[in-house]
Amino acid sequence: MTASPSNIIRGDLQDQKVADYQSPLGVTRTETVTLPGLQTQSGFTFEHVDVDYQTLGTLSPARDNAVLICHALSGSAHVAGLDPQAGRPGWWDYHVGPGKAVDTDKFFVICANVLGGCSGTTGPASPRPETGKPYGMDFPPVTIRDMVTVQIKLLDHLGIRQLFAVVGGSMGGMQALALAVDYPERVRVCVPVATCVSHTAMQIAFNEIGRRAILSDPNWNGGNYSTDRRPTHGLAVARMVGHVTYLSAFAMTHKFGRERQTERDTNGDETASFSVESYLHHQGRSFVRRFDPNSYLYLTRAIDRFDLFENGLAAEVLRRVRARFLVISFASDWLYPAAQSRELVRLLKRANIPVTYLNLETEYGHDSFLIENPAFASVMRHYLENEYRHARN
Amino acid sequence: MTASPSNIIRGDLQDQKVADYQSPLGVTRTETVTLPGLQTQSGFTFEHVDVDYQTLGTLSPARDNAVLICHALSGSAHVAGLDPQAGRPGWWDYHVGPGKAVDTDKFFVICANVLGGCSGTTGPASPRPETGKPYGMDFPPVTIRDMVTVQIKLLDHLGIRQLFAVVGGSMGGMQALALAVDYPERVRVCVPVATCVSHTAMQIAFNEIGRRAILSDPNWNGGNYSTDRRPTHGLAVARMVGHVTYLSAFAMTHKFGRERQTERDTNGDETASFSVESYLHHQGRSFVRRFDPNSYLYLTRAIDRFDLFENGLAAEVLRRVRARFLVISFASDWLYPAAQSRELVRLLKRANIPVTYLNLETEYGHDSFLIENPAFASVMRHYLENEYRHARN
Repeated sequence: MTASPSNIIRGDLQDQKVADYQSPLGVTRTETVTLPGLQTQSGFTFEHVDVDYQTLGTLSPARDNAVLICHALSGSAHVAGLDPQAGRPGWWDYHVGPGKAVDTDKFFVICANVLGGCSGTTGPASPRPETGKPYGMDFPPVTIRDMVTVQIKLLDHLGIRQLFAVVGGSMGGMQALALAVDYPERVRVCVPVATCVSHTAMQIAFNEIGRRAILSDPNWNGGNYSTDRRPTHGLAVARMVGHVTYLSAFAMTHKFGRERQTERDTNGDETASFSVESYLHHQGRSFVRRFDPNSYLYLTRAIDRFDLFENGLAAEVLRRVRARFLVISFASDWLYPAAQSRELVRLLKRANIPVTYLNLETEYGHDSFLIENPAFASVMRHYLENEYRHARN
Repeated sequence: MTASPSNIIRGDLQDQKVADYQSPLGVTRTETVTLPGLQTQSGFTFEHVDVDYQTLGTLSPARDNAVLICHALSGSAHVAGLDPQAGRPGWWDYHVGPGKAVDTDKFFVICANVLGGCSGTTGPASPRPETGKPYGMDFPPVTIRDMVTVQIKLLDHLGIRQLFAVVGGSMGGMQALALAVDYPERVRVCVPVATCVSHTAMQIAFNEIGRRAILSDPNWNGGNYSTDRRPTHGLAVARMVGHVTYLSAFAMTHKFGRERQTERDTNGDETASFSVESYLHHQGRSFVRRFDPNSYLYLTRAIDRFDLFENGLAAEVLRRVRARFLVISFASDWLYPAAQSRELVRLLKRANIPVTYLNLETEYGHDSFLIENPAFASVMRHYLENEYRHARN
């Protein structure tokens, strides 16, 4: 088997050339709305925030079929359908579309790029209103709860009082949890996938290595880099760290093993000896083309600092929750191990919150929620359908 | 609990300030010998190779009590006793000394810095005989078997025809295995710890991230850096990656959890928010002071390319082996998982080689062999004593 960069683990659709993949939704687009007035948890006030978002499907007359999908670190508003600019399908096209896990024939799907991101929503690379120059490191610290505040403002703008469901994996799962906890009237069903109520020391450590790689790149320059001199080397190393932690040892062995693949630099010196190295280099290169290094710093900090129960004891915080939960983890996910989801489930059950929990035996690590995954898709589709049927009765 | 850099996981003694630790051996020293003529596996010929080594204990009149200890990636010849220059004990002082796992009252212990290293033995930072300037990337590729060739030359120099035992963890375990396989007459007992017969894709991937961090540092400069402009940022990131993979999630949670510790740069910007981040920064800083970045590239390549069975089928290669084996892995070691040791044990048993295998339930990950670890020490001490008693009868 030759593991060329196009013949690789089907990961995040954002990262892959998927020439053979056709989205049943065809071409889709995102749009940007400017929402007024936002105060962050740190006390910074934005006069306006741009939010890039996508909607798919049709809002029911009763406005009861909206599903908010929250993206993970490297995602964007373009959740499904072919992105004509990027030339690739949305990051969750495998699971969002007609007849899919989140069925756009039934549900009105909303997905917005997060605050602090770099795909259309206001973030460190956005121009400051006062100067027209990028915020850079003057951008205020962003939290998962700030992201949720923006999601709620978007829902207000769209006239959606109550979501049927909020769904998200990894950082998206943190947003889903925070929304269900902080806005109990706004959501009926919460689906946190491969996530946790707060990061462990090891999860923080891996993010910190990525940040350190960016900060150590001389092109980072205190966050004030020009578009032609970005800290791409640092960001590529950060992405490589991320990628290895998103995969399982099994997946890497299965796809690459010890297969040799030689890469040489312009001097003829060997820069890669194994296919897995070429794969990581490719992942790094492709990521830096579409992601802002400062955004990477801000979003990983938000993830590390997230604590679902920062405002009180779990039992008290969860008392006001009204949503029903589907919690999903993956047995091979060593970055967000099942134990973290089990802990969440234990807390929800203690608070008498209805919760269904599945630890799926898929073998592709943390990325299991992003890749083609029939078991995961089936669980999510049936749960959402059943809950929606019951909710309407 | 405050996790200051001096109040941390007792890891590699090379990396720690251990003011409260006293070596029972007192001050010990290494010495350097210049050995003639070495051809590497790649075909390069060294006229001479300098080898820095340490001996402890007394060689028996029968010359039958020599134990060669092979160090891992970041080790050196200074295996035990206080290193007066570095101001710290040897890297395996916990386990080598009078009455310890490798008992210097019984055994004549030898430990040499590996070929390609940077602690006294010829490596990329050594001067080329022709020019007097460092080899840099003109140093020939080094393999685990080249390291073993140098170990054998050192044994010849010391007049030791047969080792009682060869012992090593991680990269040291690879050398122990290669020595037992390639020089069957030279060793009676082989103790590979937390190691494998070849790296998996994930193990290669983590090493490659470290290499990439070094190569991306502008100070690396194709390997031609001056002593005052070394790629310290890249090497520090590489070490941080290493450190996280050497620890278990449990150990990190136990020691750091989500404890906050703020570090600021000279601009007052926050560079660390959690204790685990400060700890990693400290590890990076302390490592770059004592390690050569090019050595890091060469040694990790040697590790990744190692394949115990590169010269034939396991069954055939193992047929000539004469040593008896003690194989040890650690349940919490996710970098060199127990499955790799079990695979080795399975191959040894199939070849009718006497093997004792223990998967110890210590909770400190790959570093379990480097830290204070009574269970590990007890197993090794008793095995070596019993085997030595039997060997003399």
